Amino acid sequence: MLVYIAGAGAMGCRFGYQLSKTENEVILLDNWSAHIEAIRQDGLLITGDVEDRVQLPIMLPTEATRQADLIILLTKADQLPKMLQDIKPIIGKETKVLSLLNGLGHATTMRRFVPEENIMVGVTIWLAGLKGPGHAHLEGTGSISLQDLTGQVAAVAPIVEMFNQAGLKAQYDENVIQAIWQKACVNGTMNPTCTILDCTIGELFGTESGLNLVQGIFKEFIAVAKAEVGNIDEEGIWKYIMDASKKAASHYPSMHQDLVQHGRKTEIDFLNGAVVFKGKRVGIPTPYCQMVTDMIHTKESILGLR
Amino acid sequence: MLVYIAGAGAMGCRFGYQLSKTENEVILLDNWSAHIEAIRQDGLLITGDVEDRVQLPIMLPTEATRQADLIILLTKADQLPKMLQDIKPIIGKETKVLSLLNGLGHATTMRRFVPEENIMVGVTIWLAGLKGPGHAHLEGTGSISLQDLTGQVAAVAPIVEMFNQAGLKAQYDENVIQAIWQKACVNGTMNPTCTILDCTIGELFGTESGLNLVQGIFKEFIAVAKAEVGNIDEEGIWKYIMDASKKAASHYPSMHQDLVQHGRKTEIDFLNGAVVFKGKRVGIPTPYCQMVTDMIHTKESILGLR
Repeated sequence: MLVYIAGAGAMGCRFGYQLSKTENEVILLDNWSAHIEAIRQDGLLITGDVEDRVQLPIMLPTEATRQADLIILLTKADQLPKMLQDIKPIIGKETKVLSLLNGLGHATTMRRFVPEENIMVGVTIWLAGLKGPGHAHLEGTGSISLQDLTGQVAAVAPIVEMFNQAGLKAQYDENVIQAIWQKACVNGTMNPTCTILDCTIGELFGTESGLNLVQGIFKEFIAVAKAEVGNIDEEGIWKYIMDASKKAASHYPSMHQDLVQHGRKTEIDFLNGAVVFKGKRVGIPTPYCQMVTDMIHTKESILGLR
Repeated sequence: MLVYIAGAGAMGCRFGYQLSKTENEVILLDNWSAHIEAIRQDGLLITGDVEDRVQLPIMLPTEATRQADLIILLTKADQLPKMLQDIKPIIGKETKVLSLLNGLGHATTMRRFVPEENIMVGVTIWLAGLKGPGHAHLEGTGSISLQDLTGQVAAVAPIVEMFNQAGLKAQYDENVIQAIWQKACVNGTMNPTCTILDCTIGELFGTESGLNLVQGIFKEFIAVAKAEVGNIDEEGIWKYIMDASKKAASHYPSMHQDLVQHGRKTEIDFLNGAVVFKGKRVGIPTPYCQMVTDMIHTKESILGLR
C-alpha cells in the first residue's frame, strides 16, 4: 500500500517509522521546513526504546501527487481542514482516510473531502515526543482501535493487518466513536476548567463547586453524544472520568500546559466548542460548554493567539 | 434620634462621623477589637478633606441594649445575618432599619429580623477608606438614595432630613431597587469574569467572546430582576454597563482585588449567587451565574477561604 502520514509531528513520526519497517511505502507530509530539511539530509533519527536512523520520504502536503491507498491524519486539530484541502489531489475514489486526531468534529470536516464509505476514525494510546527537527523520541507501548464509519469491517482488515505488522497493535472496534466521546468527555470536563481556574485536576475535583462544574459540562456532552450516536454508556464514562481524575490528581491537564504554561492556542474548538456546534444542530442547549469556550477564547485573544 | 451604625468600617465611620455633627445620638457597632480600643482611647481620627478627631461611642454589637430609632447596616455582605442576630435586642417595633450594602438578597435576610414596614434599602456613591484602627480617611463627595419597601414616603422623611443635616445629600427615590439591580448588573457581569480570567475590564469587553460572557450573565440578571421587581429598564442598564466598562477599561474590578490580589473571600454569593437563588425560586434557569459562582467558589476553596 502507498501510505501517507499527513502531519509528521511526534505521533506521525512514530507511525511513519514503524510502518516503514513493513512492505508498505510510506511518505510523510508536513509544513515545518526545518523538519523536512533535517529528515531529507540525515534521515529521521529515532531515540528512546530503540535507536535508529531511517531514510523516509517527506514533502509539503501540496507537493504530494500520487494517489494514496491510505492516508493517516495526524495533524493538530485546527490544521485539519487546510491539510485536507492541500492533499485533495492524492485522495482518490478508493483512498481510505483514517483520522487519529483527538477531539470531536473531525468526521464532519472529513466529509467535505472524502466519501463517507472511505472514512475511518480511530483512537490510539501510543505516545511519542519530538526532540527537535528530524528527531523523534519513542517510549512505552500502546494500541490503536479503529472503525469504519459505514461498518465495512472486511475493507478495513488489511489496514488493521498492516498496523499489526508494524507492531502498532491495532484492532477493529465498533465502539470507537463511543471511545472518542469518552476521551473527549475527560478532556472537555478537566481541560478548560483547570486552565481557566489555573489549578490541578485534584484541586478541581476536590471541591464541591469544582465537581458541579464537571457535572454541568458532562451532562451537556452526554446529551449531545446521545443525540449523535444513540446509546452511550453514561455511567461508565462518568466512572472513567472519576478514575482518571484520581490518577492524574497532581497534574495540570494538557490545555493548561498549552495556554498557561506555553502561551499556545488550545484545542477548545474541538472539545467543548464542538459540543456547542453539534448541540445547536440538534437543538440541545449547552450553556456550560458555550461559557468555557468563550472564556478560553477570551484568554487566547488577550494573549494575542486569535 | 438614636442611630446605630452596624458595621463601623470605612463607610460606617464616614456616616457615624458626619451624623455625630447633627443633634442625633450616634453609636457605632463593630467586632474589630483593635478598632474599638483605638476609638475609645483616642476618639475617631478623620483625615482627608477635613482633619478632625471626635469622641464617638463604639461597642460590640452584642453589647448594645437601648432600642434604636434607626439602624444603618454597613457590614460586609456575608456578615449581615450574624449582625442582625447580634443586635436583635435593639430592634424594636418602631425601629427603622436601612441597608446600604452592595449586592442582592439583603432584604430577604432583613425580613427574618425586621418587620417589612420598617425595612428601607438604599444605595450610596460616597467613598471612604480606613487607614488603620480608629482612623478613617474621607475624600470626595457623594449622595444617598433610599426607599421604604412598603412605600411610606412620609415615615422616611425625617431620616432623609437627618442625612441632609449631616451633609450626606440624601433623597427619597422610588427606583432604588432598580438602582440596586443596576449596580449588581455591573458588578455581576464584570467582577467574576475578570477575576476568573485574571484580566482588566477593557480586556474582557475588548473581545467578542468576552462580550458573549457579559451578555450571557446580563440576560440572566435581567430575567430574574423582571420576575422580582417587574419593570426594569433593560436597555438603560446595558448602556450603563457599556459606559462603565469604557471608563474603567484599564482597571481590575474589586472582586479581582479581593481574591487575586489579596486572597480574600469574595461577595459572589450576593451577586451571581443571589441571582441563582432568586432564579430557582421563580423557575428561571441561570446556568451562566451558576457556573461563575461555582468557579469563584472553587478558587476560594483552593485558597482555603471556604
